[in-house]
Formats: sequence, structure tokens, C-alpha cells
Amino acid sequence: MSKLYGGIEAGGTKFVCAVGTGPDDLRDVVRIETTTPEKTFAKVIDYFQKQAAAGNEIASLGIASFGPVDVHPESETFGSITSTPKPGWSHTDFLGTMKNALQIPVAFDTDVNVAALGEQTWGAAQGLDTFMYLTIGTGLGGGGFVNGKMMHGLVHPEVGHIRIPHDLTKDPYPGSCPFHGDCLEGLACGVAMKQRWGIEGQKLPPNHPAWELEAEYLAYALVNFICTISPQKIIMGGGVMQQETLFPLIRKKVKDLLNNYVGSEAVQENIDQYIIPPELGNRSGILGAIAMAKQI
Amino acid sequence: MSKLYGGIEAGGTKFVCAVGTGPDDLRDVVRIETTTPEKTFAKVIDYFQKQAAAGNEIASLGIASFGPVDVHPESETFGSITSTPKPGWSHTDFLGTMKNALQIPVAFDTDVNVAALGEQTWGAAQGLDTFMYLTIGTGLGGGGFVNGKMMHGLVHPEVGHIRIPHDLTKDPYPGSCPFHGDCLEGLACGVAMKQRWGIEGQKLPPNHPAWELEAEYLAYALVNFICTISPQKIIMGGGVMQQETLFPLIRKKVKDLLNNYVGSEAVQENIDQYIIPPELGNRSGILGAIAMAKQI
Repeated sequence: MSKLYGGIEAGGTKFVCAVGTGPDDLRDVVRIETTTPEKTFAKVIDYFQKQAAAGNEIASLGIASFGPVDVHPESETFGSITSTPKPGWSHTDFLGTMKNALQIPVAFDTDVNVAALGEQTWGAAQGLDTFMYLTIGTGLGGGGFVNGKMMHGLVHPEVGHIRIPHDLTKDPYPGSCPFHGDCLEGLACGVAMKQRWGIEGQKLPPNHPAWELEAEYLAYALVNFICTISPQKIIMGGGVMQQETLFPLIRKKVKDLLNNYVGSEAVQENIDQYIIPPELGNRSGILGAIAMAKQI
Repeated sequence: MSKLYGGIEAGGTKFVCAVGTGPDDLRDVVRIETTTPEKTFAKVIDYFQKQAAAGNEIASLGIASFGPVDVHPESETFGSITSTPKPGWSHTDFLGTMKNALQIPVAFDTDVNVAALGEQTWGAAQGLDTFMYLTIGTGLGGGGFVNGKMMHGLVHPEVGHIRIPHDLTKDPYPGSCPFHGDCLEGLACGVAMKQRWGIEGQKLPPNHPAWELEAEYLAYALVNFICTISPQKIIMGGGVMQQETLFPLIRKKVKDLLNNYVGSEAVQENIDQYIIPPELGNRSGILGAIAMAKQI
């Protein structure tokens, strides 16, 4: 019998846990509400223990975590959520808790880096060594691979917090970010859309001016990522990106903003295949966690 | 007798060529004016041939080139300058010309990636795997290493062309970039300083408001790079950075803009060692070229 692997996609509102080997073989998936670390972890551990008792014993576990997190294996706090504004979750030893309870090898990285791994293993980023995965939902984050490895560096990317042009005469909304006001996340995340327009982004009709503005902010961000990282592809997921109007608007604005400066066919001629939704839909994160568990 | 290596740092106004083995052993350095590719290349080839005749024969050559260039070894146009606005230089086979003439192995990359290698080999970036090297002079460019390798990706970084906030009520200057107007380079390069203030940046006194504004634009850029790449250090060289007032102004503004969001001591406590000038001064590029030749 072939081995089974476990995955956790840990978000601010829910934890998705799964057992399986890949996209065509997810044996079981469960959603657990994110409350306190103690309660949430207890339910996660209970889930994997019950799966094992039912014959779905996992050989290793991959964790895709909301952050900021410590992703440096040589660090004393590797595998912890560090200083999050989320009450009760700062300095939580996520990896250690799982390792101690389940007594199996555990891998750990940011939700977005792991989702990028999912897309690289089974989705839109197969064969790529330098690409980005962005998620635009309640918040706005991103990660990916550069030179064949996940993006870490000093801490890990926090791409939601870059600064972009904000024309206050056109959009007087001051931004939703408690740290930076009108950074990218502050202007373009789901919370910002709701605060600016009074209703949730998902409920705005496709012809609402909100989408034109949203596409503009996201295009500024993408141009900055293209000029900084030079990704081979940019994958955009998350709740806000479910509005299908967005992709063509963003692609057009990115081309306009670059103004033929980046001399690559991928951007100039084939932008429809360059800025794309995740092939794994909303399963990039949990499948990436399974892929990471398999690599241990 | 130990081997000697050659380096070329190719810029828009001059080519620096050198023979040696490292910072304490540069046997010979020459400056050649950048005119047409034919004339400039002929003088470069002549230089290395005369060095060889005088006993300074080189085993291999490293080229640090202005761009945009093709840095992908698997590409048909690897080692070429691609589509530069510089008259006469588009689609120039730099690497091939040198290889054919000198009949030795030749390595090739962007000026800024190679300068980063110089700093990693002998300067401020020793032991780092993810860091940036920026140059702010006539133009504004940057490169570096991520995950232990030079930044390439789809093309290579063009960090001068990111978009940052530009308050037109404070600074009505429209920007100098022929492609993007007020992108980072358009607002903060040497040409922009000269156009905005009427005299060259280098001639402006340290207490001139130009430096406060320059620091602001560069700080926006650095914050964006920190949030995107999470570099372990940022090295800033080039003519504009010779104004010593800039470093403390930039460091303060970066801290203010990040507003304690990036939880790293390197940024919070030791920013004086985080945003720094090149240790090799203006020799990062040519020494990086020598280092690259040694790696072949």
C-alpha cells in the first residue's frame, strides 16, 4: 500500500486539513474554525489521529500557515507564527505542537509559498523556477519561487504591503491597513473594497466602477513584481479574483503600464497565459501542503 | 604561476576592462569610451590581446553589461544586448564577439547582478544568499541574488521601472523616463535630479531640499523591495549615492514607512548595517566580473 500524506492550510478564519496523495486522491478533507491556538490545534490533532485510527495513517505532514511566520529551519522559533495582529496567535509554536502530538516529520511554510508549490507540482506553474502566487481575498498576500526555491530571504515576502500610486482626487478612500493606510493591501484587499463601496466586493456587479479601480491597483502591483522579480508567470487567486471581469482588465492595464519596456513575448504577446488564475482553483494551498509533506 | 582572469564592466558611457585575480591583485585597469559596438569591442579586444602579449594572459573573462541583455544560457541570443534605446547597440552579440576574438571561456550577466557577485565574493554581502545591489547614477538599476543565485527569471529585474507614490502637489516634475514618465528611475535618477533642480545632483549642497525628496523616493522603492524579495541586505551605490546625507535620510524613511511591520532585528534595530554602501566602492562591478570569470 502506498503512503498517505497530511496537509494543513491554516487561515485566519478556518483551517483546512486533508489526507491524501494528490489532486486525484484526496481521501478526506475537513474544515475547522480558527478560534484560539489551543482549541484549533486540539481539533486538528484529533482529526489526524481519528484518520489514522480509520486506516488513513499519514507518513508526514505539510503546513501552509497564515503569517507572519518563521520559515528558517536554522532558527530557534522555526515553524512559529510570530507577531500577528490576530489576538492570541502571536508566538505560537505551530510546527512543534504538531510534531509532538503526531510524532511524524512536519514541513512548514507560508500559505502563499505552499500554494505556489501546489501549482508548481500539479497546476499552472509546472516546470517553472521563478513565479509568483498571489491571493486577493480578505487580505492580500503573495509568495512563490525564485531560482527554484520558495521565497524566504530575511523573513519572507509581505507583498501586500508595497506602496503604489494612489490618486486621492480619484479615490479619496484612505486605505484599510492598520500599519500603512494605503499600501497595496490597504487599497485593494476585500476589506478595502467593502469599506470603500459599502458592500462586499463579491456582491458588486461586473460593470461597477469598483473593478476598474481594483484592476488599476493590482496592475500597479504586478508591474512592480514584474520589474523586481521578473516572474515567468503570475498566478492570482482568492475571493476577489472570482470576479472574472478582473483578469482582462488587469492584463490590459499591465501592458499599458509596462509600455513595451519588458521585451518578452510572454508579456507582450501572451499575457493571457502570463497572468492567470490557479489551475487547482481553491485547492492550491491544501494540495501544496500535501506536496510539501511528500518532499520530506 | 597562478591563473589570471579578465573582467569587463560595460556601461553606457565607458567600458572598464581589467586583468587580475581579486581586490588586492588588479594587475591592470583601463577605461574605454563607449562609442559604436564595432569600435568599442575592437578596442576591448585589442586591450586583452596586448595584455596577453605583455605576459598578462587571461584564462577566462567575465562580462558585466548594461542592458537589457539576454542572460539565459539556453537562449539563442544569450550574451546579447537586446532592445536598448542606446543608438546602435540593440541586438549586439557581446558574448559571442568576445569569445570568437579571444578564444577563451566567457561568462556574462547584467552589470548590477555582477556587481552583486563582487560584493558577495569580497565585499558587504559575504555569506548572504538573498540580497540586492542597487545603483543610482545617470540611470537607476538593480539586481542581486535570491536563494543563492543571480536574479534572472523571465528576463532579469528592471527595478528602476517600478511605480511608487508621487505627490504632484509637492513635486510637479513629471519624471524623466521615456517609457513611464514618473516611475522610480523617472523620479529619482541623476537625469531626473538635474532636470528637476536645474543643476547636477552631485553639485547640490547637503542641506538642499532635493535630498529629502530623493530619500523619500528611494525609501518607497526600498520598502517595496523589502516587502517583495525580503533581502538580507540592500547595497546602494552609484554617483547619486555619493552624497552622504542620503543614507541616514533613507534609513529613517524606510523605518517610518514600514512602521514596525517587518519583524526583523536587521530592519528594526540594525538598519545602519542593513542599507549600506558597497564595500568595494566603485569597483564592485569590475571585481564581480573577475569573480565571475574565476567561477567558469
